[in-house]
Amino acid sequence: MKPYVLGIDIGGTNTVFGIVDTRGNVIASGSIKTGKHPKFEDYLEDLHTEATRLIEANDAVDKIQGIGIGAPNANYYNGWIDNAVNLPWPSMPLAQLVSEKFGIPVAITNDANAAALGEMTYGAARGFKDFIMITLGTGVGSGIVINGQVVYGHDGLAGELGHVIIKRNNGRLCGCGRTGCLECYCSATGVARSAREFLEIRSNEPSLLRNIPIEQITSKDVYDAAMNGDQIAKDIFNYTGTLLGEAMADMMVFSSPEAFILFGGLAKSGDLLMRPLREAMEKNMLAIFKGKAKVILSELKEADAAVLGASALGWEAKEI
Amino acid sequence: MKPYVLGIDIGGTNTVFGIVDTRGNVIASGSIKTGKHPKFEDYLEDLHTEATRLIEANDAVDKIQGIGIGAPNANYYNGWIDNAVNLPWPSMPLAQLVSEKFGIPVAITNDANAAALGEMTYGAARGFKDFIMITLGTGVGSGIVINGQVVYGHDGLAGELGHVIIKRNNGRLCGCGRTGCLECYCSATGVARSAREFLEIRSNEPSLLRNIPIEQITSKDVYDAAMNGDQIAKDIFNYTGTLLGEAMADMMVFSSPEAFILFGGLAKSGDLLMRPLREAMEKNMLAIFKGKAKVILSELKEADAAVLGASALGWEAKEI
Repeated sequence: MKPYVLGIDIGGTNTVFGIVDTRGNVIASGSIKTGKHPKFEDYLEDLHTEATRLIEANDAVDKIQGIGIGAPNANYYNGWIDNAVNLPWPSMPLAQLVSEKFGIPVAITNDANAAALGEMTYGAARGFKDFIMITLGTGVGSGIVINGQVVYGHDGLAGELGHVIIKRNNGRLCGCGRTGCLECYCSATGVARSAREFLEIRSNEPSLLRNIPIEQITSKDVYDAAMNGDQIAKDIFNYTGTLLGEAMADMMVFSSPEAFILFGGLAKSGDLLMRPLREAMEKNMLAIFKGKAKVILSELKEADAAVLGASALGWEAKEI
Repeated sequence: MKPYVLGIDIGGTNTVFGIVDTRGNVIASGSIKTGKHPKFEDYLEDLHTEATRLIEANDAVDKIQGIGIGAPNANYYNGWIDNAVNLPWPSMPLAQLVSEKFGIPVAITNDANAAALGEMTYGAARGFKDFIMITLGTGVGSGIVINGQVVYGHDGLAGELGHVIIKRNNGRLCGCGRTGCLECYCSATGVARSAREFLEIRSNEPSLLRNIPIEQITSKDVYDAAMNGDQIAKDIFNYTGTLLGEAMADMMVFSSPEAFILFGGLAKSGDLLMRPLREAMEKNMLAIFKGKAKVILSELKEADAAVLGASALGWEAKEI
């Protein structure tokens, strides 16, 4: 086996890539603008040029075992990206095209599955065979690991726990077109929506948040206000944590994970989020599972996590 | 490999056992009363005597590869039955005790997981690697198969989808002590509870069901009334199927199964249940999964299914 993998995280704005060793050290990394290239051929040319430059500069030519890619709507089984609304290109066989360009085996999956793999290979989930990774970013993503394997489902698209319905009636409209998804409440965007709801409808108490134009309030503003003792902001975190804890108790009956691993900006809200989350999870837990599941934070540095996650998949990439 | 396995299904009332071949033919079967033996030693003695008689009568001595047992609260990993409220005995290492008595390897799991294994080995799920078995009996059980393996979770107890919460507020009280579980609505008992709710609270229309003392109405009564054109009875099936379909759409985002396989008395209600179920499932499905999951009925004969399911586990039983 060669000593390195190349991890590539394709986001709507930036594509970040890095050379990673077996211990999860990012030897070197670089990035290009994803959106700059409306034609995929141009994007691939740019990516190949920059990545090759990095590989050569780090004496890694012929030392890359595989390439792992995390990307929206990436299908692990067939290597295609399908209808990824955040990317400028149509559906395409991404794994095959990148593999042909680099002459190296490529495997792809979505970013949350990549995060779970990264955590299992290098991070907080080392040694766990059954866990659920939940990414709390702009949306809510998930990567489910059972028996040491990421769950891809029969079509390669499993693990969309951001889209379990937590409010069956009168739920918030989700980007997916349905209403009441977990993602509408427990993402950074969801917290901002909760802020508007609490300030406009639920309460007329004073709040530090009332100093900010209501449409501009972010989850970071809510966090800052809560840390400054603002009651409405604390209520918003209680609400968010409780909903997530209830949802996690329901996930438990499915696969009985040893741990939930939380990742993303919102996960770093400390006790503001974690206390109500843990309380709601245990309170709503089926008796046989009570007290069993750990809730822990990602151990991967946020700046490296996406590349590390993608790179972890590189170790299992095979010739197409 | 020897040509037979012994399947044992331990229920609260009866224990049924059968000799099964590799094609899923039940060569011969027998049963004993579970509840007759307050002491487990006596029960095991009786079971051993009767099963041995059956084995000898069918020329199967030394031809049993393994014993598979389906039982409430059975833990696949450690072979124990823990706090099984329907059985007369305390927690105990069931697999070990039965294996010592018979001198044959034993594996155990709960009845819904056994049903999933049976369906995968001999029934409607042959060839499926990703499916979810849902048993609609007195309660709602489930067995989840991912990558061709039953999901046991980190503690051996995963797959309790009867206890996902489908009504977060003002839900019905469940036997598990919580409220709003799927099982309270979509089991035979749940249908009977719905009948009482519809007749007493939701409607004052005439109904064939009003001829039956309300506390005695069963799901079979509701089925019969619906088949006779009774509108309230049909509404109850619509309600039940819709709730189950909504819940199944949520299960889909977890493991993206190729199929849901339904088993049990209620599953045989035909279009009364299946039409609203399929409609609700597709209507509530996340777009990427729409139209993908089959909903099919078990192919195992109900009389044989429990023994067949348990027996399927016998093929993977190992020396303890």
